[in-house]
Amino acid sequence: MLDVKMLRFPCAFPSNAPCDSSDTVSRSIVVEGMKDILFEIRRIFYIFGEGNIGLVRGKHANGKSEFVLFNISGKSKVKVIDEDLGETVYELNEPRDAVYLPRMIWKEMYDFTSDSVLMVVTNEYYDATEYVRDFEMFAEEVREMKRILEMN
Amino acid sequence: MLDVKMLRFPCAFPSNAPCDSSDTVSRSIVVEGMKDILFEIRRIFYIFGEGNIGLVRGKHANGKSEFVLFNISGKSKVKVIDEDLGETVYELNEPRDAVYLPRMIWKEMYDFTSDSVLMVVTNEYYDATEYVRDFEMFAEEVREMKRILEMN
Repeated sequence: MLDVKMLRFPCAFPSNAPCDSSDTVSRSIVVEGMKDILFEIRRIFYIFGEGNIGLVRGKHANGKSEFVLFNISGKSKVKVIDEDLGETVYELNEPRDAVYLPRMIWKEMYDFTSDSVLMVVTNEYYDATEYVRDFEMFAEEVREMKRILEMN
Repeated sequence: MLDVKMLRFPCAFPSNAPCDSSDTVSRSIVVEGMKDILFEIRRIFYIFGEGNIGLVRGKHANGKSEFVLFNISGKSKVKVIDEDLGETVYELNEPRDAVYLPRMIWKEMYDFTSDSVLMVVTNEYYDATEYVRDFEMFAEEVREMKRILEMN
């Protein structure tokens, strides 16, 4: 099973800029499907608005979709629960940083700043049937997956 | 030849929100390749940073790439020069609004606000050889294209 991991993207323009919030130049970052991220990009969505303050988005796992999450303005956090049911929090504080989430990872996005724009890139079109929105069902499914993997 | 045009995306969540800067709910907008936009998404880039203030980005045409430009935080403008060498300015003031640019359109992005994040979605991987960076060369190419089209 692929692991959740942080990704750091270089500045495409200007290529010598640090691309963090300490520099004041014009910056751009490029994300190419099947190159910078290991899937074809079928869907992009972005989450924004002052109503995100105090809100928790996500709260589901996906049977087919992989995700790369960028917070390209402001900040947010992503709490992830993996197949071992271990919990990790990833902080997205810079536009160059992203977190990769493979299939069947429980995710919750929260602590959005008022200027936060969370850009999410995925390999699948939207399909409501692949969403696991009940945490107990998710936990049961990953326990079952592990049991099968350990038998083989 | 396909035309430059403004696109307005609906709110995916919550689906009844106006999705403009007048509402204060948490919002999300979805963009699916080959569905909401008429090409496969191979590349995404985003342009941001205080250094954008007063700057003009773009200043080129592309022989192969089509683009959809969203200003998903703040505001910016896109000046477009088409195959008739006519100039039009599109204002990107809301995260739900985008402008579609077909091939061989001269574009300049400018008047970025300090909080501007311009997200650009394209159908091609980066290829320096398809960029036409000299305006006179662009004008010559589109005049020649028109001449050929009128002959047929």
